[in-house]
Amino acid sequence: MKKFVNDVESLLAESLQGMAAAHGDLLALHLDPLYVTRKVLSKSKVALISGGGAGHEPLHCGLIGKGMLDAACPGQVFTSPTPDQMMAAAAAVDSGKGVLFIVKNYAGDIMNFQMAAEMMQTPCATVLVNDDVAVERSTHGTGRRGVAGTLIVEKLVGAAAEFGASLDQCKVLGDRVNSRTASMGVAFTSCTVPAAGRATFDIADNEMEFGVGIHGEPGRRRGPVRPAQELVDELMAAILGDLKPKAGSQVLLHVNGFGGTPLIELYLLYHNAAQLLEKQGIKVVRSLVGNYTTALEMAGASLTVTLMDDEMTSLWDAPVHTAALRW
Amino acid sequence: MKKFVNDVESLLAESLQGMAAAHGDLLALHLDPLYVTRKVLSKSKVALISGGGAGHEPLHCGLIGKGMLDAACPGQVFTSPTPDQMMAAAAAVDSGKGVLFIVKNYAGDIMNFQMAAEMMQTPCATVLVNDDVAVERSTHGTGRRGVAGTLIVEKLVGAAAEFGASLDQCKVLGDRVNSRTASMGVAFTSCTVPAAGRATFDIADNEMEFGVGIHGEPGRRRGPVRPAQELVDELMAAILGDLKPKAGSQVLLHVNGFGGTPLIELYLLYHNAAQLLEKQGIKVVRSLVGNYTTALEMAGASLTVTLMDDEMTSLWDAPVHTAALRW
Repeated sequence: MKKFVNDVESLLAESLQGMAAAHGDLLALHLDPLYVTRKVLSKSKVALISGGGAGHEPLHCGLIGKGMLDAACPGQVFTSPTPDQMMAAAAAVDSGKGVLFIVKNYAGDIMNFQMAAEMMQTPCATVLVNDDVAVERSTHGTGRRGVAGTLIVEKLVGAAAEFGASLDQCKVLGDRVNSRTASMGVAFTSCTVPAAGRATFDIADNEMEFGVGIHGEPGRRRGPVRPAQELVDELMAAILGDLKPKAGSQVLLHVNGFGGTPLIELYLLYHNAAQLLEKQGIKVVRSLVGNYTTALEMAGASLTVTLMDDEMTSLWDAPVHTAALRW
Repeated sequence: MKKFVNDVESLLAESLQGMAAAHGDLLALHLDPLYVTRKVLSKSKVALISGGGAGHEPLHCGLIGKGMLDAACPGQVFTSPTPDQMMAAAAAVDSGKGVLFIVKNYAGDIMNFQMAAEMMQTPCATVLVNDDVAVERSTHGTGRRGVAGTLIVEKLVGAAAEFGASLDQCKVLGDRVNSRTASMGVAFTSCTVPAAGRATFDIADNEMEFGVGIHGEPGRRRGPVRPAQELVDELMAAILGDLKPKAGSQVLLHVNGFGGTPLIELYLLYHNAAQLLEKQGIKVVRSLVGNYTTALEMAGASLTVTLMDDEMTSLWDAPVHTAALRW
């Protein structure tokens, strides 16, 4: 296994210590139980908490800070965090306005966030993100998977919470953003979970997994690698088939790398996807291109489209100061 | 070859069109000859221009904007840009205060930037970056290679130029930052130049290239993969042996991913490297962790240390608004 690691057992803690040190003005790391909060806690707003298995960095810890999350609970690589982490994080960041959990739709994450919610004394709501249109049933969860659209939910709800939205308003907004967001991806290679020490799946030198999940879950089919424009056309057909945008719709287009695909290719995908949308009379009003919701070192990428309105666009534009997203 | 590409010939142009569209507020793309400038040109400052082969994204086009570069000239992947690109870029962004070329130390880049400088009518100076301490002689150039330290030079000189420094002052500062910056990296895998269609070098499943260049050039030696802390110790010994910092020195520590290594590992490297520096009485006052000077999809990373002083630290902190670096 070719990784920068000293001991598989200590990888996550060492990495989080590095992240907290590199962003000492932004992040505070708590080791037992394991969670990360903003360095300066907000005194009066709905507390936004996300979490999930590590290996998707910068999601979620890189999205902690003003305008996005208040805390995140990382599990081991591709492994759900536990309720004690979520309860400790909630206790640390709750300022009396309630706690909103933003949870990707995987069985383990849902179960543990739900257990935490049931044990907490404070008002609490949950937004489930399930933006992956590749398959209706995932090997890792129930129904559609939560993938790169999670960042869009966290950004828009994060801005609303910062502006003083109530817990109910944040919950309604989060559900609405999720329902207006659809994603789908393709992988050229697998990835290696450090504790497993071998690739999650085997794939031939000329093959790709179309509709892959962010843990290497199977997609719609395995097939030969094809030109980028054909992949974009097919991914976008699935995404737009789900969202059914009207002509003249305004959208955010997010090209997300899975970790092992260089930026030169991600920008090419953006070019191909944006042109396709414009040809269909859909206006790309905002964009994000880069490695945000990764699957360790997997080569591949996903496209995400969110149907925007003026409120959502102004929430997207609102200031954000995190390790991975800042404006 | 597993890449998101339609036609190898059009990859660079399609990618740059995507980048310019995704950052329409920041970048203006000129296709013939090929160069990228700020969307809003500065009217009265030294013009900073860099360039080099593509495949290192976000370097250099992702570093165009207020507080950094005025323009960049991309060549094809790992191929030098040509003098006509540099002259056209210079003509576009020269505001009468002179032009500074920031050039990585490779024979082709040096020759072409020098030809452009000789043909230009405007005052012009060049800062050569050669921060790679791995090898004295490179297969791609003359002497030490320019690698991830280039970003540090571009950031600090970019800030100074924005504050009104003269061409001479920018040149002196650039040379000084370069002389106080040292880098070295290690690769676990090779990368595939699209036009070649096969890996630049072969490497066994348990081997790494220690001291690798950002085009896959050989380093100091090939050997078995070792724990991260041992790699950090050896990289840092070479870097500090070059810089010879005094106890109490203040440094910027930059962990740069080559493209195929996930953030979870880069932050672990940062943790190991920052702890080593602190143990030696060297204070890490600023940091940068991420994929900035990449080698396509190569798995691996480099460490860069810059000896800082108060002026350099305040130049680092100065506002920057580019696609890849923003604060």
